Amino acid sequence: MLVKSKVKYIQSLGQKKFRDREKRFIAEGPKLVYDLLLEKKTSVSEVFALPEWMEANQMAFADVDLHEISAIDLEKISQLKTPNQVLAVVNQFENSENISARNKITLVLDNLRDPGNLGTIIRIADWFGVSQIICSHNTTELYNPKVVQATMGSIARVEVHYLDIEKWLAKQKDVPQFAAMLEGDDVSQMKKLKEGIIIIGNEANGVDTSNLPAAIKKITIPQYGKAESLNAAVATGIILSHLV
Amino acid sequence: MLVKSKVKYIQSLGQKKFRDREKRFIAEGPKLVYDLLLEKKTSVSEVFALPEWMEANQMAFADVDLHEISAIDLEKISQLKTPNQVLAVVNQFENSENISARNKITLVLDNLRDPGNLGTIIRIADWFGVSQIICSHNTTELYNPKVVQATMGSIARVEVHYLDIEKWLAKQKDVPQFAAMLEGDDVSQMKKLKEGIIIIGNEANGVDTSNLPAAIKKITIPQYGKAESLNAAVATGIILSHLV
Repeated sequence: MLVKSKVKYIQSLGQKKFRDREKRFIAEGPKLVYDLLLEKKTSVSEVFALPEWMEANQMAFADVDLHEISAIDLEKISQLKTPNQVLAVVNQFENSENISARNKITLVLDNLRDPGNLGTIIRIADWFGVSQIICSHNTTELYNPKVVQATMGSIARVEVHYLDIEKWLAKQKDVPQFAAMLEGDDVSQMKKLKEGIIIIGNEANGVDTSNLPAAIKKITIPQYGKAESLNAAVATGIILSHLV
Repeated sequence: MLVKSKVKYIQSLGQKKFRDREKRFIAEGPKLVYDLLLEKKTSVSEVFALPEWMEANQMAFADVDLHEISAIDLEKISQLKTPNQVLAVVNQFENSENISARNKITLVLDNLRDPGNLGTIIRIADWFGVSQIICSHNTTELYNPKVVQATMGSIARVEVHYLDIEKWLAKQKDVPQFAAMLEGDDVSQMKKLKEGIIIIGNEANGVDTSNLPAAIKKITIPQYGKAESLNAAVATGIILSHLV
C-alpha cells in the first residue's frame, strides 16, 4: 500500500507550482512509460504499477525503482479519468540555452496556448523525424499532464526547450527561417529542407513577426474553401509533410 | 426573461436522446451562429442573444426568430464554460442516401470516435474546399456540441451524411477510392485529384478494409521518426494538402 505522504506528493505533481518546485512530472499508461524507460531511463525516478504490468516488465527494468500497487492506489495518484496500469514520476529534462539549428529541422512554437495542441505537435514532430522544438516562454508548459499524455510517448524522443525565441533566432542567422502565416509562399510548391527553422504561431493570432528577423520567409497552406484558419497542430503536420 | 420550459428545452438539446427526437441541435458563439445564418438561414429555428449581439445583428437578420436575453439566462442555456454572446437552436440537416461522388472530392470517415476530431476534420475539409463528408453509422454524432463548436462555423458549409459506407462505396465504382493506412503509396508522390473518395479510419484501428471494394488504393504518409501514428485530423489535413 502507498503511504499517504507519497500519494499526496504524486497528486501534487498535477499542479504546475509543485512540478516547477520539484522539477518532476508524471507520465501514465504502458506506451508512454515504456517509451520513457526505453529512451530516458535515467530520468525516470519511480514507477507505480498494477501487478499485471509488473509481471510483464519488472525483469526488463530491474534497475528502476518499481512499486507494485493496487488499482485503488493507482486511482488515487492518477490524473486520468480511466487509470491505465502504470504511472511514472519523471525528472524534468534539461532546458539548454545552447541549441544549434545547423543540419537539422527545428520547430519553433510562438505562444502556443493549448496543451492538447502542444502534445500533438510533439507527436507530429516525432513522426517526421524532427528531434528538437524550441518554445517561447509564453508557450504552454511541457509537463502539464494533458501535454505529456497527448504526446503518446513522443516526449521521450523529441527535445523541447523553452527559450527567448527572438534572441535565439537572431543567433541562427545562417539557417533558413520560415514562419507559418495566412499569407506567404505556397508550402506545397517549396523544396524539401535539410536544414531550417519553422515557426508556428499562436492558435488565434498566428506568429508575432514584429520582433523576428527581417530575413524570415513567410509560408502558407493554400486555402481553397472558406474556413478561416486551420488548427495549429494540423498546420504543423501539413507543413512538415511538405518540407521534410 | 426566458420561461422555464424554454430553458429546459434548450438544455435538453445537450443530450443526444433529445437531439435525435427533436431533430435539432445548438450552436454557440458569434462566428458559428453568423455562418449558420449566412449559409443555412432556413435551418435556424431560434436565436438567443445578449443585447450587444442583438444591436449589431438584428437588422441584418430581421426575418429570423431572435430573442434578446440576459447574461444570466445565456449562462443557463449554454453548453460552454464561458458562454459567448449568442446561442442558436438549429434544425438538423437532411441526411440523404443519394450522394454522388462524381466530379468532386469526398471524405469518408470510418468509425471515427472523437468529437473534437470530427469537428476539426469538418473544418479542414472546408479549408481545402471539400464540400461533402460521408460518415459510417458508428462515427461520432455530428450534432454533439463538441463537434459543432470544433467546426468553427464550417458545419454551415460542409455537408455531412451518415450512411452504410460499404454499400455506398460499392455504388461509386467509377470513382477512384483511397484508404489512409499505415502502409501504402506515399501520398506526397501522388498526383492531385479532381475526383476521388478518401477514407479515413478509426483513431486506434485505422480503416477497416475487410468489407471494402478490392480496387481501393492504400495510401500513407511516410514516417521518418518513431511516433506510432498520427492523429486522425492531422492525417486528414496532410492527405488533403497533397491531393487537392
